[in-house]
Amino acid sequence: MAQLTLVIGNKNYSSWSLRPWLAMKQFGLEFHEIRIPLYGSDSSSKTRQYSPSGKVPVLLHDTLTVWDSLAICEYLAETFPTLQWWPKDKTARAFARSITAEMHSGFQNLRQNMPMNCRTKYPGKGLGSGVQQDIDRIISIWKESRQKFGNTGNFLFGDFTIADAFFAPVVLRFVAYDVQLDANSRDYVEIILALNAMQEWINAAKNETEILPQYEF
Amino acid sequence: MAQLTLVIGNKNYSSWSLRPWLAMKQFGLEFHEIRIPLYGSDSSSKTRQYSPSGKVPVLLHDTLTVWDSLAICEYLAETFPTLQWWPKDKTARAFARSITAEMHSGFQNLRQNMPMNCRTKYPGKGLGSGVQQDIDRIISIWKESRQKFGNTGNFLFGDFTIADAFFAPVVLRFVAYDVQLDANSRDYVEIILALNAMQEWINAAKNETEILPQYEF
Repeated sequence: MAQLTLVIGNKNYSSWSLRPWLAMKQFGLEFHEIRIPLYGSDSSSKTRQYSPSGKVPVLLHDTLTVWDSLAICEYLAETFPTLQWWPKDKTARAFARSITAEMHSGFQNLRQNMPMNCRTKYPGKGLGSGVQQDIDRIISIWKESRQKFGNTGNFLFGDFTIADAFFAPVVLRFVAYDVQLDANSRDYVEIILALNAMQEWINAAKNETEILPQYEF
Repeated sequence: MAQLTLVIGNKNYSSWSLRPWLAMKQFGLEFHEIRIPLYGSDSSSKTRQYSPSGKVPVLLHDTLTVWDSLAICEYLAETFPTLQWWPKDKTARAFARSITAEMHSGFQNLRQNMPMNCRTKYPGKGLGSGVQQDIDRIISIWKESRQKFGNTGNFLFGDFTIADAFFAPVVLRFVAYDVQLDANSRDYVEIILALNAMQEWINAAKNETEILPQYEF
């Protein structure tokens, strides 16, 4: 099998990188990792060596280059079709793709005001009305997914899917900013945090030395 | 076959709505259309009748609800698999998914400063350095796609695919703001504008009476 290489940014800050990294870990794919710290003097030129968009994450597979977290996950889903990347049931899968795409293009208020941070806690920071709306919507998504489709397991659709990978950075935001959650969301946060792969990511993030002031309060 | 219904916003302004609408027209799917003008006093409540995210577009198919332009297109691709929604070749398809996802989550400067507008021209408005970077990147995407994968036809990957649907709103932005383009991009703009479905959309947009001041200069 051709080597898989995932190019990512800082584990402490790069929420987009976490998504395919976590999915690949959860589905047991072996891959080589290239980490390019963001906003360094040579970050842009290094990233462009691999990434046509100039952004991480990027997946290198054989002669192929795939970029953007969602395109990478869809590529993996069709390249490794024996793994259940999306829910098997058609209705659940449509729901999973919808909430994943909603996360991929939306929640700008949350993103901008509560940047992902694995090693520092800023309780209550970043909260404003647009942010609270984003949080409420995510709580509602998690509740509806688990109630309707999640009864065979702990994740949004029972077993782990791409949708969980897409909401994993949100879990870290909720922890870092100590966001008020309902019981279902608190439970889901604990489930995601307890994953070995998440612990591996968080520990690596804590060992990173770069500090990006624009993402710290 | 179960009825397909697409819920969209104003044709003049809703770039997200144009994407699945155009793809469905190009692939010959018959569908019922529900138009909900944006930012009216009852827009939000009407949209929420159909859309869990409160946003358009939304696809209703039998008992299923699928929202977000990209999730809708991926849903259609797997529901109508005899149609070639994505390029057949694996490398081309990975490239198509990458640029489509890049468009789905990015180009914020272009989006914010050059809102889609089918009926008015604002030559030179909205142009700033971040916007020019977005424009340059799109020109480069169009060139690379057509050079590498487009030699069997006029579109980004030869025949029309979801990727073209995702870049169609950009074509309208480039026209509305009279953006300076290279020869390849000018040609591609003409190809997209000449589609019957695009002409149908633009004519309907011109007949709409709502004016949203936040999208007009």
